[in-house]
Amino acid sequence: MGIVLGPHQYGKAETRVVRIYRDGPEHQIRDLNVSTSLRGDFDDAHLRGDQAHVLPTDSQKNTVYAYAMEHGGGALEAYALALARHFADDIGPVQAARVDVDEYQWERITAAGTPHPHAFVRAGQEIRTASAVVEGKGSEQHAWVVSGLRDLVLLKSTGSEFAGFLRDRYTTLAETHDRVLATSLTARWRYLRPDADWDRVYSDARRHLVERFASVHSLALQQSLWEMGQAVLAGSPEIAEVRLSAPNKHHFLVDLTPFGLENPGEVFHADDRPYGLIQCSVQRADAPPAGSVWESPTAFA
Amino acid sequence: MGIVLGPHQYGKAETRVVRIYRDGPEHQIRDLNVSTSLRGDFDDAHLRGDQAHVLPTDSQKNTVYAYAMEHGGGALEAYALALARHFADDIGPVQAARVDVDEYQWERITAAGTPHPHAFVRAGQEIRTASAVVEGKGSEQHAWVVSGLRDLVLLKSTGSEFAGFLRDRYTTLAETHDRVLATSLTARWRYLRPDADWDRVYSDARRHLVERFASVHSLALQQSLWEMGQAVLAGSPEIAEVRLSAPNKHHFLVDLTPFGLENPGEVFHADDRPYGLIQCSVQRADAPPAGSVWESPTAFA
Amino acid sequence: MGIVLGPHQYGKAETRVVRIYRDGPEHQIRDLNVSTSLRGDFDDAHLRGDQAHVLPTDSQKNTVYAYAMEHGGGALEAYALALARHFADDIGPVQAARVDVDEYQWERITAAGTPHPHAFVRAGQEIRTASAVVEGKGSEQHAWVVSGLRDLVLLKSTGSEFAGFLRDRYTTLAETHDRVLATSLTARWRYLRPDADWDRVYSDARRHLVERFASVHSLALQQSLWEMGQAVLAGSPEIAEVRLSAPNKHHFLVDLTPFGLENPGEVFHADDRPYGLIQCSVQRADAPPAGSVWESPTAFA
Amino acid sequence: MGIVLGPHQYGKAETRVVRIYRDGPEHQIRDLNVSTSLRGDFDDAHLRGDQAHVLPTDSQKNTVYAYAMEHGGGALEAYALALARHFADDIGPVQAARVDVDEYQWERITAAGTPHPHAFVRAGQEIRTASAVVEGKGSEQHAWVVSGLRDLVLLKSTGSEFAGFLRDRYTTLAETHDRVLATSLTARWRYLRPDADWDRVYSDARRHLVERFASVHSLALQQSLWEMGQAVLAGSPEIAEVRLSAPNKHHFLVDLTPFGLENPGEVFHADDRPYGLIQCSVQRADAPPAGSVWESPTAFA
Repeated sequence: MGIVLGPHQYGKAETRVVRIYRDGPEHQIRDLNVSTSLRGDFDDAHLRGDQAHVLPTDSQKNTVYAYAMEHGGGALEAYALALARHFADDIGPVQAARVDVDEYQWERITAAGTPHPHAFVRAGQEIRTASAVVEGKGSEQHAWVVSGLRDLVLLKSTGSEFAGFLRDRYTTLAETHDRVLATSLTARWRYLRPDADWDRVYSDARRHLVERFASVHSLALQQSLWEMGQAVLAGSPEIAEVRLSAPNKHHFLVDLTPFGLENPGEVFHADDRPYGLIQCSVQRADAPPAGSVWESPTAFA
Repeated sequence: MGIVLGPHQYGKAETRVVRIYRDGPEHQIRDLNVSTSLRGDFDDAHLRGDQAHVLPTDSQKNTVYAYAMEHGGGALEAYALALARHFADDIGPVQAARVDVDEYQWERITAAGTPHPHAFVRAGQEIRTASAVVEGKGSEQHAWVVSGLRDLVLLKSTGSEFAGFLRDRYTTLAETHDRVLATSLTARWRYLRPDADWDRVYSDARRHLVERFASVHSLALQQSLWEMGQAVLAGSPEIAEVRLSAPNKHHFLVDLTPFGLENPGEVFHADDRPYGLIQCSVQRADAPPAGSVWESPTAFA
Repeated sequence: MGIVLGPHQYGKAETRVVRIYRDGPEHQIRDLNVSTSLRGDFDDAHLRGDQAHVLPTDSQKNTVYAYAMEHGGGALEAYALALARHFADDIGPVQAARVDVDEYQWERITAAGTPHPHAFVRAGQEIRTASAVVEGKGSEQHAWVVSGLRDLVLLKSTGSEFAGFLRDRYTTLAETHDRVLATSLTARWRYLRPDADWDRVYSDARRHLVERFASVHSLALQQSLWEMGQAVLAGSPEIAEVRLSAPNKHHFLVDLTPFGLENPGEVFHADDRPYGLIQCSVQRADAPPAGSVWESPTAFA
Repeated sequence: MGIVLGPHQYGKAETRVVRIYRDGPEHQIRDLNVSTSLRGDFDDAHLRGDQAHVLPTDSQKNTVYAYAMEHGGGALEAYALALARHFADDIGPVQAARVDVDEYQWERITAAGTPHPHAFVRAGQEIRTASAVVEGKGSEQHAWVVSGLRDLVLLKSTGSEFAGFLRDRYTTLAETHDRVLATSLTARWRYLRPDADWDRVYSDARRHLVERFASVHSLALQQSLWEMGQAVLAGSPEIAEVRLSAPNKHHFLVDLTPFGLENPGEVFHADDRPYGLIQCSVQRADAPPAGSVWESPTAFA
């Protein structure tokens, strides 16, 4: 009847692995949430229920743990790449492997003025992310790395305008030359090559995003994002493209005049929904192709 | 320095509009969460902070409400299409408009044996979804519609196996010929044309998904999904493609032997993370191109 | 320095146990989230780190699984009571045991017109709850049972007023004689004795809550709750008290006049926050004391 | 039929108010989530639908905003007290008022090495809390204040044991003298009097909790909590009692021996559910009565 199997993939999502480095008295910690996804010659699993080509997701989970022991010593990008390369290289039916990692960050507790060797407190709600995609085997193999962050909550209490916009019959919004601008930023940057000083680039990119958000006098969130993306690319030649997704978390000035009060930009209602959603990519004109690295399994359907 | 603006889009996310139909004594209700996203000639907003081409997201929200009044009388697909066509047709700088709608479903309360005319109870946690994408203007305009559901939680207490799989050095999983199979299904189907009896097709597709999940003796979740997707396409000629994303919500048999008890497949631990994630598309061999309809703004970055 | 240990308790929270009954070809399922909490002679664990009196929370989890096998055959109240009695009776240092159970409900899938023997779909987002508290040992033992539900989402599209209220200098609300009334109800009822036909009383209480919500012409959510509580007590002589907690999920009429449209109670914005929160207890005048049964561990601090 | 109205209360939950202080070029921000709850002579609203004594929750919301303008200049405890006293003093039918406030914390962005005057980043996922309860009017009035925090996530990678515990027939847990100890702490402390240097006491209490968690060699989470509570009371004579609620966020050592690897306390699975839940109060022997200050409306039913 002309019905065929289309794109398909499978993996193990959200393996929560915590790696403690206890090489000396001062421990280090990496706290990760790892998802794997494999594409390849898995048609028979769908069409005939034949698992001969299917590496169980349970084995993928085991691999995540074992690699945390053996290859966990560096940045999450290196760990994600090692895992993706392993699946592409060592599992016959796999044609492409993708590994997505979230990292929850910790800072050392200072007790009695001294950094404690093995006690930590979670640092911020912001999550560092990395994705590695490896396609093909041997000399035909290509790899892509995207790093980023999400849930980075930023706010400017002034220095933000919104005026001169297009009006249609449904437009009632007043122009403003002084508003609160707030967002919960998702940023992801794609590397030119799957090789970089990952932690340093992360640190630089994050700093450029935050500092540029602060320093731009914003005529629109669109403009802020462009400036922030530009700063990331200007600061890190390793990066080919940065994608930004920024909800406009509306803060509405509360009308206090019924109570005989002025409100000179001091009391706001922080609204939940709806919210604006502003998204853009900033890229080098000569950026190489992205392959499938932007296609997260969470958005397959 | 060779840095350019890449793809960009913006809109208003999650406008929570509830439409009550009170044409007679028996009210009807449609409870929606609507997100709009516009692509087009918005470079100046990014590059120069010039909003002259930018229809505020606040106006998009107002349009969502106004269209609920004027065009809310049918299925959510028709409403999404009307909104997307309006943005593409009537707002000059817009080159493509996307509208995503979630619908929360209600059923009428029966009191004293009689269906109540205006009292309702939320029906299920499952959410019905629809997306419309309209690209271009006038005779160059094309439209796509995807409908679906998510959070449809299904379970089989037997009739599911997993055996004969590929083994590597990280494989410890035992084969099983009787396990619990459970998922929280996301399904989305793309129409051949942006015109159908939306509510009927939704009802048929959902029924085929659920019934096929139940009736297939499952050799793997992959096989169940293929069979479910096939049933949807076989049952609805209006559908070009169905995409399925199914977490394998693991139920682990608890070992009760330390307590002197047998456990013949009766007591399970329902685990949270990690979970398998199985995804596939089932499509007609001659399905037309999908355009950008699978690119949800929630996955931009 | 006059610092002493005050009230303390501990247990295992959220053991996710799924019990399949496969006595015949037609399976049954109970899908539970079980939390245990013990009070007793555990001072030394706090004051000296001495665990000699402490039954590990891991053992409590094991007991939850084992009892699902041995005592899982009835309502969740009976199961909660059996667990709580076990801890109070059999674990020496325990002076009081509390067991809280949430039940996620499933309904059988109908495939090809026939109820399927072992395939299920989650029924609604509403959660059935039960708590058992057992204090003391032997002849001094007392037990309490509270049953209930939460996340029961109800809405009336008319038949609700709010007028004649107290006004102060901060009051700007207009009176209304026709509004949408919606809530996500939490209801919990305490039994006179720890013995009842649990499933029947649950079914009756839920029906009375829903039907009374529908049939009362509401002058305030307060009045609806009182009427609903009364109906529960009138319908079930086994119940001593019912407690109701009802967020007023505001639905604001959208002003469409700027767009030249009337809005005769048809288009609403469903707001997230803030929300009214209305709470009351309805009880028999001669209800026996409640002991600690209303003191959920989730509210200890 | 002997059915009576029991305890009842109502209010406005989760008003999201953001207060910007822009007295000079360097702005300050307080980002609050405020819930009010009133007890008093509201029987007629329930029994007869008569709202004459009912101050609308909408007016309570307005008061929250207006007081943020007029009384928002200090700690959240002072603001909560001012609100609660207003409701008790100025609204005739109110016999007791409770105000619960969550504060989301921000830190100033440093751009180009300089703290920015009006740009901020959210600091941590931890939430500062305060509750004020005011009962009675005029000379009969009493007030209580509780401050605290929640979602403070702490972890020790060693220095934690669990051994010597009670064993029963369901005990399978092995003793351990080196484990990961992690929690997401909720702590709330009650003041002797409704008057203190709120921000300083908060800062001291938080520091004592964190430092003591780090420095105690833990024989059980129970012992850690007792030591942490003691440190809070010893450090702040203003505090009468501290309550601690600590989920034991289990980190299970992964068995890597099937893959030929040692795991000397380095790779862990961070599990979601179930979790231990350890709770205790530490108090001064002569602490005054707590009134209803521990009875959060979120736990009414």
